[in-house]
Amino acid sequence: MKNITAITISIGDELLSGRTLDSNNAFISRQLDLIGISVVKKMIIGDIAQDIKDSLDWAFSQADVVTLTGGLGPTHDDITKSVLCEYFDVRLKLYPELLEALKDRFAKRGFQFSESNTSQAEYPENAALLENPFGTAQGMHIQHEGKHLFVMAGVPREMQIVTTDQIIPLLSKIAHKSISIIDIHSIGVPESTLYELTKPVLDEYPDLKIAYLPKQGMVTIRVSFPSSSPDEEQKFTTELYGKIHDLKPKNIYGRDEEVLPVLIGKLLKAKQATVATAESCTGGLVASLITDISGSSEYFQTGFVTYANETKMSLLGVAEQILVDYGAVSEETVAEMLNGTLQKSGADYAIAISGVAGPTGGSEEKPVGTVYIGVANNAHQNIKRFQFGKNRILNKEMSAFSALNLLRLLIEKDV
Amino acid sequence: MKNITAITISIGDELLSGRTLDSNNAFISRQLDLIGISVVKKMIIGDIAQDIKDSLDWAFSQADVVTLTGGLGPTHDDITKSVLCEYFDVRLKLYPELLEALKDRFAKRGFQFSESNTSQAEYPENAALLENPFGTAQGMHIQHEGKHLFVMAGVPREMQIVTTDQIIPLLSKIAHKSISIIDIHSIGVPESTLYELTKPVLDEYPDLKIAYLPKQGMVTIRVSFPSSSPDEEQKFTTELYGKIHDLKPKNIYGRDEEVLPVLIGKLLKAKQATVATAESCTGGLVASLITDISGSSEYFQTGFVTYANETKMSLLGVAEQILVDYGAVSEETVAEMLNGTLQKSGADYAIAISGVAGPTGGSEEKPVGTVYIGVANNAHQNIKRFQFGKNRILNKEMSAFSALNLLRLLIEKDV
Repeated sequence: MKNITAITISIGDELLSGRTLDSNNAFISRQLDLIGISVVKKMIIGDIAQDIKDSLDWAFSQADVVTLTGGLGPTHDDITKSVLCEYFDVRLKLYPELLEALKDRFAKRGFQFSESNTSQAEYPENAALLENPFGTAQGMHIQHEGKHLFVMAGVPREMQIVTTDQIIPLLSKIAHKSISIIDIHSIGVPESTLYELTKPVLDEYPDLKIAYLPKQGMVTIRVSFPSSSPDEEQKFTTELYGKIHDLKPKNIYGRDEEVLPVLIGKLLKAKQATVATAESCTGGLVASLITDISGSSEYFQTGFVTYANETKMSLLGVAEQILVDYGAVSEETVAEMLNGTLQKSGADYAIAISGVAGPTGGSEEKPVGTVYIGVANNAHQNIKRFQFGKNRILNKEMSAFSALNLLRLLIEKDV
Repeated sequence: MKNITAITISIGDELLSGRTLDSNNAFISRQLDLIGISVVKKMIIGDIAQDIKDSLDWAFSQADVVTLTGGLGPTHDDITKSVLCEYFDVRLKLYPELLEALKDRFAKRGFQFSESNTSQAEYPENAALLENPFGTAQGMHIQHEGKHLFVMAGVPREMQIVTTDQIIPLLSKIAHKSISIIDIHSIGVPESTLYELTKPVLDEYPDLKIAYLPKQGMVTIRVSFPSSSPDEEQKFTTELYGKIHDLKPKNIYGRDEEVLPVLIGKLLKAKQATVATAESCTGGLVASLITDISGSSEYFQTGFVTYANETKMSLLGVAEQILVDYGAVSEETVAEMLNGTLQKSGADYAIAISGVAGPTGGSEEKPVGTVYIGVANNAHQNIKRFQFGKNRILNKEMSAFSALNLLRLLIEKDV
């Protein structure tokens, strides 16, 4: 059977100038790859009509599937739709229901609806629309001489949902090759170490495609394999996840949608327990991650951001002498923060974090990236010292996720 | 004078699969942009000889300068260099001094030098070498029918130093034009409205290139213009920013690096003032954004995440009757949260937020996306009702940034 090939095209002067990194092409490639469609070339072009037409000619001559992102907004540099009309020799068609929705949207936010916005409800008549729930620019599917063109807004969030919810289901019907996926999440293990650790297990299975996806100091192992029956798949993924998890159960923690904030929520709900947070260097990020999950109010009620020593004392009752003797970034201070958090919040579990996020503020003894992270309930307390890097934002993220992982281990021990 | 144009080509299967993001093309674009050379197209291709040749044909036919990165590492060098030899019909030339250096390098690290490594000292005879101090794959400059081809290793560090230290000095002699940029940030205005609003001002100036870059419900206007003297540029950008800002001073708030968390920091430092936060639906995100900025401990000491009604009462002293009469998502509750935050934290300014982040929990009166955001100091209190959309994460982000914007307005009024 012939392999289905794809070419991705991104439109936007800001991508050419290099001030914005094109992550859209990469996202689309990964998604197509999952259903067995290979991206063979990618192109980035400016907001120039002739260049868009030339790139379409070029792409249709070499691939079965072509994706085009960008240039779909309401401003002058957004010329994609009119170019498509010229290219396919078709007209724009007005969708009255989209126009009404647009007018509603403007009215609700208190803005005047001007006629120029009408264009956001018009699409080339040969396009089938693909719903974009996050914006006004709908996606498009155009079939052309046996080839498939998909057109999307360039805003990553909008491009991503149109790709995953509309394009992939559509293409997986013609891709013939059906691929299933299991994501296995880890934290605190370098990519190369994880690779060597998991290789013997993964090598046991033929037909697996493996990718290591690093992000924010964590690595997800994405395993794709030929689809079979739901029962067989479940048996296989359960077995595979079990074997990989057992290699390093403290660090390999969940699968698929079970990223740490989700997993914490499941575990707390199952125990009908609550957690409260006390954050210094993460500055509220742990609480924000926990509350990213819908329904988190069931297990999260209280968070303290105690950035200053005075606040650690006044809100959490940390003793001044502890701060003087050991410093804010210390096991002793975090222990006091945990006690104060449990007491003041009445929660079943507490997380407390104090560290040097950087890039300044380090010392020889506690360089930038030194973070004490603690978790506790009324019976146990566990505090660990971590040494992260020099990047402030990355240090915040790695501290926050490491805290959630320690909380997971404590809850699992309790169960 | 004719504009000098460039096309950048990246080679690498890992770039096509989307597992590695191509940042090399973006780096080269920014560097070329600085000396007035516009990148008009970018392409990413796999490690396939014919594709490399085709892309060279295509690029030479459309641009004056072509850059080619990747396929030069120790595992791929045979492909790229031999493809170049075939393409230009030339032979490889051995550089004895490079061979000696290679042998030294292997000896120092205790590795055996095998003859297959000799190829790393060989380059097409029509190439002038460009020194790469960080690796063994030298850069190349090939002149071809009045056009310039530059070939570099794909390792970012090596590509970067060859670009900045070798290619840019070379090309700046043939380029004559330089481009400058100003970014103007806005919040709370749809892209289309911002476009119509700013068009008359931007149309006053010839030679401007404008792009609207939407992100997280905010839009940045990126204006590029021909460089002149630093004094003239400063005068121009100050004038332009002033005019754009004055069109909607509540929503158009900063330029260049002055995104909201940075701007808030500057304003608070200038006043030697502090801010504290009380967050319900944003769950700590405002505090986390504020503390993303290095040095924020100077003006941020205390944050409350009061997700539950009980916590709003116990930590902030919100009266139970207010919660019963008006609900947690109400102007009255946010007013009490503001008072409690100022009092409990001792800060000069307070931010308080309560809303329905969704996707569940809405009512007819307060649908998902309804958020009350308040800011206060001891003299003033300003609370506004916002209506965002249905996406939880986006609602958190838009609420958080809107809160920072309201704080900006309050501080600016105080100055």
